[in-house]
Amino acid sequence: MSPQRGPSGHLIVIGGHEDRQCDKAILAHFVALSGGPDARIAVVTAATAHPEQTWDTYCKALGDLGASHCEHIHIETREDANRAELAAKLADADGIFLTGGDQKRLLANLGGTELDTAMHRAFKEHGACIAGTSAGASAMSGHMLAEGDGLDRPPTEGVSLRAGFGFLQRVVIDQHFSERHRLARLLTVVAQNPYLQGIGIDEDTALVIDRGLGVEVVGQGAVTIIDGRSMLSNAAEVDQCDTPELIDVRLHLLPAGKRYELGADDHANDHLPPPLLDFLKNVTKRNPAS
Amino acid sequence: MSPQRGPSGHLIVIGGHEDRQCDKAILAHFVALSGGPDARIAVVTAATAHPEQTWDTYCKALGDLGASHCEHIHIETREDANRAELAAKLADADGIFLTGGDQKRLLANLGGTELDTAMHRAFKEHGACIAGTSAGASAMSGHMLAEGDGLDRPPTEGVSLRAGFGFLQRVVIDQHFSERHRLARLLTVVAQNPYLQGIGIDEDTALVIDRGLGVEVVGQGAVTIIDGRSMLSNAAEVDQCDTPELIDVRLHLLPAGKRYELGADDHANDHLPPPLLDFLKNVTKRNPAS
Repeated sequence: MSPQRGPSGHLIVIGGHEDRQCDKAILAHFVALSGGPDARIAVVTAATAHPEQTWDTYCKALGDLGASHCEHIHIETREDANRAELAAKLADADGIFLTGGDQKRLLANLGGTELDTAMHRAFKEHGACIAGTSAGASAMSGHMLAEGDGLDRPPTEGVSLRAGFGFLQRVVIDQHFSERHRLARLLTVVAQNPYLQGIGIDEDTALVIDRGLGVEVVGQGAVTIIDGRSMLSNAAEVDQCDTPELIDVRLHLLPAGKRYELGADDHANDHLPPPLLDFLKNVTKRNPAS
Repeated sequence: MSPQRGPSGHLIVIGGHEDRQCDKAILAHFVALSGGPDARIAVVTAATAHPEQTWDTYCKALGDLGASHCEHIHIETREDANRAELAAKLADADGIFLTGGDQKRLLANLGGTELDTAMHRAFKEHGACIAGTSAGASAMSGHMLAEGDGLDRPPTEGVSLRAGFGFLQRVVIDQHFSERHRLARLLTVVAQNPYLQGIGIDEDTALVIDRGLGVEVVGQGAVTIIDGRSMLSNAAEVDQCDTPELIDVRLHLLPAGKRYELGADDHANDHLPPPLLDFLKNVTKRNPAS
């Protein structure tokens, strides 16, 4: 994947705790894919209860990487998120970074506002790079994994979906995946929503999506794909408190360092295993239905 | 599955911490499949460093279930494990229970001894029921997951296989599966040994195997099957410290309460999904190669 900014924009979906002190590999990708040191970068801290502290961290890390035009987009209310001057800044941004915190707070404040519209314009109209980490990562898909924890095995308690920003469709994203042992939670979502491909992203790991072209895994861990579309299951029949039967879930583990490029036509993709090709086509769609 | 003892013997593979106080559902299955209250039951404590305490627990629990002929097979050395009178007791047993502890200790003391031979005779010649919990469960397969812990994602550190008792072949068993978050460990084993189907068993959960006939999941949790035989992987090329790429691992989740019966011929198995049928045929083989 070329580090130059493409016309269709990149998405960087980060599993949380990306390195901000040492090599900062993921943030360096973000700066490069936004256009380099001169890129206009907006850091949206609306997910966190500690926006100033979070901004300080990213301001320093991105500055260390040479990014000289970083701005803090600080939103506390939906009124803030409809302010025209902030929306204009986001619409003009070359790179937009959604920090961690709570994805429910992020969507409650930004969902459907002028800032939401502005982010999509930046992405679609001039190919901005949109990155999200932890809560910011979960928020990037149309169906957002909002909460659900507790049990180690499916069904996990209180797993719920909400509406996310929809930069990706037909997927559901979980973060801190291996570190917080979230397979059971992602299996629960996929069992109940086999339409969605589950993407579990480890800490300090990012799925970098180049629309129409391919994906790359950057960082230290791996991306786990849970694909239940050809699964057989009794999830619709069993009580929500009971463990469902799941037969033939497909699991892929994509380690950091791997790149998967899509060819110009299906023939050029013969080297890709069909279930992986299917995943790649899904996440690299240029215009996902919203 | 009938609770009567079959001519070919049952295997009960338990994920550890089976209930010994309340309904004791798994131990009740063990007593029933051994032949009921009059069954000659042998409790082998060779895996544990606390054999007397472990025996006391099982003696009481099995007694509460009506088993009136329970005996403690206490082994401290390989010499003990070659004692003719102990071997005779095991060969005559209707039910043999391998307790938890350390599977390396268990195999180091029993592997290849007269007691090992006697257990196989009991199983094959008069259809004894062989149960193992935790370390005792891991020890039941030919390739035994001996150790390996640490990292949350593949490759986990120091995963190693040793030779187990071989009541099951072409599988590798892990226990305390969901509770100790052992997916990464089982994926590591399967990535390195795709010949083996991974079986992860939750605590207070058992995979009950009726040779030639089918399986049943008993208890509170689930059995997770990890099948990497059609997987694509670079595990052979990457450094052992690096995360391998895994494409198209099949995962099945079989919850407690489920029974899967094999028909008399392939036509009678049309209702079973092929990947599950394949697993069932493998684990229910009457005479696995050793």
